[in-house]
Amino acid sequence: MSLNVSAIEGLGDAAAAVEYVGASADNIWMLIAGFLVFWMHAGFCMLEAGSVQHKNSVNICFKNLGTVTISAIMYYLIGWGFAYGPTGGPGDDGANTSASYGFIGTGAFTLEGLGASDMALFFFQFAFCATAATIVSGAVAGRINLIAYFIIAVYLTGFVYPVVSHWIWATGGFISGFTDPAHKLFGSCGMVDFAGSGVVHMTGGVSALIFAKVLGPRKGRFDADGSPLEIPPHNIALQTLGVFILWFGWYGFNCGSTLAWSGDLAGHVAVTTTLAPSAAVITCMIVQRFLTGTFDIGSALNGALAGLVSITAPCAVAPVWGAIIIGILGGLIYIGASKLVVKIFKVDDPVDAIAVHGICGAWGVVAAALFGAEASIESSYSCPDFDRGMQLGVQLVGIFTIVAWCTLTCLPLALLLKVTGLLRVSESDEEMGLDASEHGAQAYVSGKSAKLSPA
Amino acid sequence: MSLNVSAIEGLGDAAAAVEYVGASADNIWMLIAGFLVFWMHAGFCMLEAGSVQHKNSVNICFKNLGTVTISAIMYYLIGWGFAYGPTGGPGDDGANTSASYGFIGTGAFTLEGLGASDMALFFFQFAFCATAATIVSGAVAGRINLIAYFIIAVYLTGFVYPVVSHWIWATGGFISGFTDPAHKLFGSCGMVDFAGSGVVHMTGGVSALIFAKVLGPRKGRFDADGSPLEIPPHNIALQTLGVFILWFGWYGFNCGSTLAWSGDLAGHVAVTTTLAPSAAVITCMIVQRFLTGTFDIGSALNGALAGLVSITAPCAVAPVWGAIIIGILGGLIYIGASKLVVKIFKVDDPVDAIAVHGICGAWGVVAAALFGAEASIESSYSCPDFDRGMQLGVQLVGIFTIVAWCTLTCLPLALLLKVTGLLRVSESDEEMGLDASEHGAQAYVSGKSAKLSPA
Amino acid sequence: MSLNVSAIEGLGDAAAAVEYVGASADNIWMLIAGFLVFWMHAGFCMLEAGSVQHKNSVNICFKNLGTVTISAIMYYLIGWGFAYGPTGGPGDDGANTSASYGFIGTGAFTLEGLGASDMALFFFQFAFCATAATIVSGAVAGRINLIAYFIIAVYLTGFVYPVVSHWIWATGGFISGFTDPAHKLFGSCGMVDFAGSGVVHMTGGVSALIFAKVLGPRKGRFDADGSPLEIPPHNIALQTLGVFILWFGWYGFNCGSTLAWSGDLAGHVAVTTTLAPSAAVITCMIVQRFLTGTFDIGSALNGALAGLVSITAPCAVAPVWGAIIIGILGGLIYIGASKLVVKIFKVDDPVDAIAVHGICGAWGVVAAALFGAEASIESSYSCPDFDRGMQLGVQLVGIFTIVAWCTLTCLPLALLLKVTGLLRVSESDEEMGLDASEHGAQAYVSGKSAKLSPA
Repeated sequence: MSLNVSAIEGLGDAAAAVEYVGASADNIWMLIAGFLVFWMHAGFCMLEAGSVQHKNSVNICFKNLGTVTISAIMYYLIGWGFAYGPTGGPGDDGANTSASYGFIGTGAFTLEGLGASDMALFFFQFAFCATAATIVSGAVAGRINLIAYFIIAVYLTGFVYPVVSHWIWATGGFISGFTDPAHKLFGSCGMVDFAGSGVVHMTGGVSALIFAKVLGPRKGRFDADGSPLEIPPHNIALQTLGVFILWFGWYGFNCGSTLAWSGDLAGHVAVTTTLAPSAAVITCMIVQRFLTGTFDIGSALNGALAGLVSITAPCAVAPVWGAIIIGILGGLIYIGASKLVVKIFKVDDPVDAIAVHGICGAWGVVAAALFGAEASIESSYSCPDFDRGMQLGVQLVGIFTIVAWCTLTCLPLALLLKVTGLLRVSESDEEMGLDASEHGAQAYVSGKSAKLSPA
Repeated sequence: MSLNVSAIEGLGDAAAAVEYVGASADNIWMLIAGFLVFWMHAGFCMLEAGSVQHKNSVNICFKNLGTVTISAIMYYLIGWGFAYGPTGGPGDDGANTSASYGFIGTGAFTLEGLGASDMALFFFQFAFCATAATIVSGAVAGRINLIAYFIIAVYLTGFVYPVVSHWIWATGGFISGFTDPAHKLFGSCGMVDFAGSGVVHMTGGVSALIFAKVLGPRKGRFDADGSPLEIPPHNIALQTLGVFILWFGWYGFNCGSTLAWSGDLAGHVAVTTTLAPSAAVITCMIVQRFLTGTFDIGSALNGALAGLVSITAPCAVAPVWGAIIIGILGGLIYIGASKLVVKIFKVDDPVDAIAVHGICGAWGVVAAALFGAEASIESSYSCPDFDRGMQLGVQLVGIFTIVAWCTLTCLPLALLLKVTGLLRVSESDEEMGLDASEHGAQAYVSGKSAKLSPA
Repeated sequence: MSLNVSAIEGLGDAAAAVEYVGASADNIWMLIAGFLVFWMHAGFCMLEAGSVQHKNSVNICFKNLGTVTISAIMYYLIGWGFAYGPTGGPGDDGANTSASYGFIGTGAFTLEGLGASDMALFFFQFAFCATAATIVSGAVAGRINLIAYFIIAVYLTGFVYPVVSHWIWATGGFISGFTDPAHKLFGSCGMVDFAGSGVVHMTGGVSALIFAKVLGPRKGRFDADGSPLEIPPHNIALQTLGVFILWFGWYGFNCGSTLAWSGDLAGHVAVTTTLAPSAAVITCMIVQRFLTGTFDIGSALNGALAGLVSITAPCAVAPVWGAIIIGILGGLIYIGASKLVVKIFKVDDPVDAIAVHGICGAWGVVAAALFGAEASIESSYSCPDFDRGMQLGVQLVGIFTIVAWCTLTCLPLALLLKVTGLLRVSESDEEMGLDASEHGAQAYVSGKSAKLSPA
C-alpha cells in the first residue's frame, strides 16, 4: 500500500515537487474551509427552525434547503461571472478571469474558461454566496410566501451579492483592497473586509431589513398600540445546536479566507474568531442579567453570532486584545440594535438577523479601521502608506455602498412582489401555520394518531 | 514554541523534506476525509430517527451506534483482509497486501502486515464499509429484531461489502479500474465508480431490498387491498439535520476518494458534489409541487441524497455541467423509484433507502459511462483507448455483479433468519414500539411524571 | 485565478519553499484538529441537554455556552501563562516561553511574547482547557446555582487545569514526558498521556466528583433509605447526537495531539480511537443485556465515551489489537464505576461524567503503561531505556498527582460556595426547574399558547 510516496517520487526534481505539494495545499485548505462554510447552513437551519413557532419549522427546513441549492445553481450560472468574471475593462486580456478593471464581471458564466485549479475557490465562494441569502430567510420567517422567497433567493445569489463581492473582493473592484493601487478610487489600502462582515453579513442583513419591512410583521407580534409582544422560540436545544454549528463553521469562514496555506495567519484568525464571540457572549449574559433579571438564553446565543459577525472583517488584522474589545462592543451593539429594529423600525425579525448580521456587520467594518494593526493591513493589502483616518473613511464608503446597493436592488423587488400579491401568505394560512398550509406536514408526530405535536 | 520548523530542518536535504511533507499529505487528507465519512453516521442516525415513528426512534439510535462499532471490529478482523489483503494469486509477492490478482483477498486479517502508512487508508475504508450496512438499517426499521439486524451487520461489514470493494476497487479485482490491463476481464478501463455509487450505495440498497422484502412491511403500511398508507415521520427537524450532516460528510466521501493530495481534482469533485444534489433537490421540489400540490419536504430531503448518490460514481470524471444533468435525472429517478418500491414491489422502506441508494446508485454507475469525459477517465484509470459504448457495457456488468452478489449472499441469510423466527419482533412488540419492548426506554420524557411524549 | 502557484514561486529556492509548506503544515493540522475539539462542546451540550430533565435543558445550553466562552477568556488571560509560559526556573532565557524548568509557568499572560506561529497551538490548547470544565457541568446539572458554576469554570480553566497540563505536558513539567531527562523526577520516559486521559478527563472527572459530592444529589435521586431512583433522560435523540459529535470531535482531540504533520502517526491514532470505543460499546451492549434484560441505550452511549476516554492516553503508543482490549476493559470499568459512584459514593451524576471521565481516565493512564509498545514510547518520548514496571509507577504517580491536586484545589472552593449559600438553588427553584427559575424560559413551546411542552 505505498500510496503516499509515489505521487511525489514521480515528479522528478524537488522544485517541481514543492510546487505540486504547495499548489494543492492552497486548494485543499480552501476545500476544507469550504466544507465548514457549507456546514454553516445546517446551523442557520437549526437556529431558525428552533427560533420560529412550531407550526412554521418545517417551512424553515424546506426554505433553507432551497436556499443552498438555488445558490449553487445561480452562482454557477451567473453569480461567479458577475463577481469574478472578466470585465472587458482595462487589463482584461481575455485569459485571466478576474484581473481586469471594470464595474462588474461580464463573463465566465457557467464557469466558462475556468480551469481545474479554480474549482476549490469557486466552491468556497459559492458557500459564502448562499450565506447572504439565508440571512434573509430568518428575518422573513413565518409569513412570507415560499415562491416569493425563492424568487428573492435567486435574485440575491445570482446578482445582488455577486456584485457586492466584485466591488470589495475582486481584483478590479472599485473599492477592493486587491485592486491595483492605480485603479483604486478611495484610499491606498482599499476596503478592509477580510472575511465579509460587510460583503456577506451586511448584504444579507440590509436586504433582510428591506424585505421584512415591506412584508410586515407576523400577526400578534405587535399589539394594537404598536408595542412589541414576544413570540417565544419553540425549541431552544435546536437554537443552541444551530449556534454551535455556526461558530464551528465560522472557523472555515474566517480562517479559510486566507485563501492560502498560511498557517500562522490562519492561526491568528482562529484566535480572534474565538475571543471576540466569547467576549460578546459574556457581555450579553451580564448586561441582560441586569436589564431583565434573568440569564437570557436568546441574547447569549445571538451574542455569539454578534461577536462572530463583528470580528469577520477585522479577524486577520486586529490584534488579539483588540478582538476582545471588538467582541464586547459587538455584544452591546447587538443588544441595542435588537431593540432599535423592533421598537423604532417596527420590524418583526424572528431571529434578529438584521441586528446580528446587518448592524454588527457594519460595526465589524468600522472596527477593522479602528483596531487594525498598521503593519498587518499594509502587508495584507499591499499599501505602504496606511492612514487610520483615511481608512475609516474608506470603510464608511463601503458601508454606504452596501446599504445603497441593497436598498436600490431589493426595494423594487419587494414592492413588486407586494403589489402583485405574491409576497405574503393569506391570514388564514399564517394562522394555521406554513407547515400545514404550504407543506401538508407537521414537524412532530407522536403516537399512533397523527395529531399535531409536541403539544 | 518553535514547533513548526524543527520537523523540517532536521530532515537534511530538500528532496527528503519534500517526500516527508508529501507523504504525510496524502494520509492527512485521507484522515480528514475519513473523519467526515465517520460523521455521516450521525447523519444516517438523525435522518432515520426522525423518519420513523416516535416509538421506534431509540431503537434507531441503538442500531446505528451498533452498526458503526460492529463495522469497525469486523473490518479490522476480516473485512479489510477480504477487500485489500493478499490474494495468493499471480503477482502476490507476500509483501504488498493488495497488488496481486485473485478472486478475493485471503490475508492481512487483523491488519497483519500493514505498516503505519496504511492506517489512514484502513480508517477511510472502514468508514465506507459501515455505510453499506447502515443503509440497510433504515429500510428494515420499526419491525426487525435487533439481534437479527446485528447478525446482518456482521455479515455485511465482514464479508458482503468487502468482497464487492475488492472486485471493483482493489488492484487485482476482476472488474477494477486499478487492475493491470493484462488482467482486466472487461473493457480497457475497468469499472468507473469513483467514490462508490455502486460499491457502497448499491450494495447497501440491494441488500436493503432483500431484507426488507423478506421481513415484510410494518403493520398498517398497506391496507387490506394492498394499497400503501402513509406512516408519517415523527420529527422533521431531525430528518433535515440528518440530510445536512450527510451532505457535509459526503464531501469527505467523494473528495477524499482521490486518496491523494490532489487539490485540483478534489476541487472538481467538490463542485460536482454540490451541483448534482442541488439540481436534484430543485427538481424534486418542482415535480412534487405539480404531482401533489404541496412543497413536499420528504422528497426534497431525499432528493438531496438521490443527487449525492447519483454523482458519487461520476464525480471525478463528469464535467461540471454534466453533474447538473445527472442530478436532475437522479431526482426524477428517485421519485419514480420510490413509487416503484412501494407500489410494485410492495416493499415498506421507511426511509426510501432502496430508491435512494439502490436505484440512484445504479443510475450513478450508468451516468459515469454516459457523462464521463474521455480524457478524465483515460488519465484517472490508465486506459488509453476509452470507448463509451464498451464502457457502458462494463458498467452494466458491474451493476449485474452487485445485484447478483447481494442477492446470492443476503437472500439465504434473510430466509434463514425468517424460518428460525429470529428476523422479526412479535406483533405486540411492534404495536408497543421497539423502544419500550427492546430498550425499556422512551425517546422523550417530559415533566415530572414519566409519561410517553411528546404526545 | 492563479492563486496557487504564486505563493510558492515567490519563495526562491526549494529549501525555503519546503520550509514554508512544512511550517504551515503543522499549524494547519493543529487548526483543523482544534476546530474539531471546539465542536466537541456542541456534543457535550447536546448530550447533557438530552440527559437532564426537560425542565433543566435550557440551563444546560446556557451553561455550556458560558463554559466555552469563559474558558477562552481565562485561558487567554492567565491559563496559557500558567501552562506554557516561562517559569523563571533553570533554562529560562526570557525568549522561549515554555522550555524552562519550574513548578508552573509565571509569564506569557495575555499571550505576551507569543508570535504568530504560536497561535494555532494556543487555539488547540484552549479547546482542551474548555473540555475539563465542561465535564464538571454535566455532573452538577439540575441543582447548581449558575453563578457558582461560572465561578468554578473560571477557576478550573484559569488555574486548576493549566497547572496540571504544565506538569504533564509542558517542556519543564516535573512529570512531563517532554522534560529534558536531566530534569525528570520520575522515570526515564516521564508520564505517557498522549492526548489527555489524565490531563483533561481525570482533571474534569475528579473535580466533578468533588463538586457533585459537596453539592448533593437532585431531589428524588435517592429514596429515604438512600437507594438510588432513576431520573430518566428527557431526549434520547439529543443524547445520541451528542455522542456522535463527541466521537467525531475526538478524532481532532487524539489525532491532533501529534501537534505535527505526521500522517502515519495520526493514522495509527485514528484507528485506535475507532477500535477502542467500538469494543467498549459492544461490551456494554452485551453486558447490560445480561444484567438488565434490555438493550440499554444509556450505557451503550456512555460506553462509546468510556472507550474514547480510555484510549486517549495510549492512542499513539498502544498497538491496534491493544486498543480493542483497552476498549473492552474500559467498557467494563465504566459499568462498574457507574454503580460505584451512585451506590457507594452516593453521588448523583446525571451524565455519569465521574465514571466516564474520571475513572476511565485513570484506566487510560494505566493502560498506556500496560499496553504501550516499548519502541513507540521510546521514540515518542525520547527515552532509550523504557521499563514497563517503572512506567506503571510513573503513571500511578501521575494519577495520584491529579487526584491530589484537584481535591486540594476544588474542595475548598466547593465548601466555600456551600457555606456562603451560593452553591445550590433553592428547593422550590429546583422543583420548578432551572429553565423557569434562572432563565425565564422553557425548552419547548408548542401551539399558540405558551404551555410547557413536549408534555
